[in-house]
Amino acid sequence: MSTVEFWYEFGSTYSYLAAERVEGVARVMGVDVQWRPFLLGPIFGAQGWTSSPFNLFPIKGTNMWRDVERIAAKYHLAWTRPTTLPRNGLPASRVALIGAEEGWIANFSRAVFRANFVEDRDIGDPAIIADIVAKLGLDPSVMARANTPENKARLKAQTDTAIALGIYGAPSFTVDKELFWGHDRMEQAFQWAKAPWM
Amino acid sequence: MSTVEFWYEFGSTYSYLAAERVEGVARVMGVDVQWRPFLLGPIFGAQGWTSSPFNLFPIKGTNMWRDVERIAAKYHLAWTRPTTLPRNGLPASRVALIGAEEGWIANFSRAVFRANFVEDRDIGDPAIIADIVAKLGLDPSVMARANTPENKARLKAQTDTAIALGIYGAPSFTVDKELFWGHDRMEQAFQWAKAPWM
Repeated sequence: MSTVEFWYEFGSTYSYLAAERVEGVARVMGVDVQWRPFLLGPIFGAQGWTSSPFNLFPIKGTNMWRDVERIAAKYHLAWTRPTTLPRNGLPASRVALIGAEEGWIANFSRAVFRANFVEDRDIGDPAIIADIVAKLGLDPSVMARANTPENKARLKAQTDTAIALGIYGAPSFTVDKELFWGHDRMEQAFQWAKAPWM
Repeated sequence: MSTVEFWYEFGSTYSYLAAERVEGVARVMGVDVQWRPFLLGPIFGAQGWTSSPFNLFPIKGTNMWRDVERIAAKYHLAWTRPTTLPRNGLPASRVALIGAEEGWIANFSRAVFRANFVEDRDIGDPAIIADIVAKLGLDPSVMARANTPENKARLKAQTDTAIALGIYGAPSFTVDKELFWGHDRMEQAFQWAKAPWM
């Protein structure tokens, strides 16, 4: 079966929209989806950006906030504009990698996105992530296992893989080396996985 | 009848895709469309950008070229990657404003976009625009009328209106003051014009 790799960053508004919708699209299209958290910070830094482009270019930010709430309403997704953007996705991303091994990454990731973009909680705080882990009934030891040198290196390697694929924003979707950028290209990525049209 | 304002820049790749498709979408949706050429140069300049972001951030440019050819193929639109980006939309925009008064702006604009993005012609050269005017059978005097101080001021005013609406990229679509940015938001803009969902 063909597969779409879903590259996301926990601090990213459009990644939240994609995280809520991607499993439904995958199911309807009959295509497998692999959840791939990564960090945008190092990638933005390499472009000379010290923050999200939505903060650096306020005119873009204004439109983004309106666009996201409009799309959330269109798809009937809960939405609260967070008081901080971007929040640090590092602790959640490390835990998510354990979830990728153990099969609970999608559920955990959606819970983190909702904490950020519905409940306005600071997902950059490890205590908040530990609370999400507890509420999902996951083994509390994942918090320590997320912080082993091996797991830290895995997240670094995953971000390097994203960079090597040409990824510079989130969400992104890849089908082998074919890159699709943005929540608004999600359906195209799945269509491509089923039947590339060029 | 509700109306969508279609804001476009002749140098913009995604504006080409929208120009080819917008009349069909308008017809199916039963919504009127107004063609509004404007210049991105002054807007990019205000962000501190000296060229297209696709040139300033090559990693974005790489994806854009692939994305545009993929979308063109999807919609069965002709596409040739131009040897220069962005080309100067100034002479074509001034002529287009005459076309807005006289009713031939859509046809003329599509011809200019095809010159740029199918035939790889330098649309920044007034002689090329004069040739397009001639091939469309339009009165050659439009070239002179496009360059009157009054008409130059109209283009300046139209770009100022775009800025006042919060426009910072092309294509954009507005329904009254509601702004939609990007070819990928075109359908949403028309849906909004028919029935805003929030």
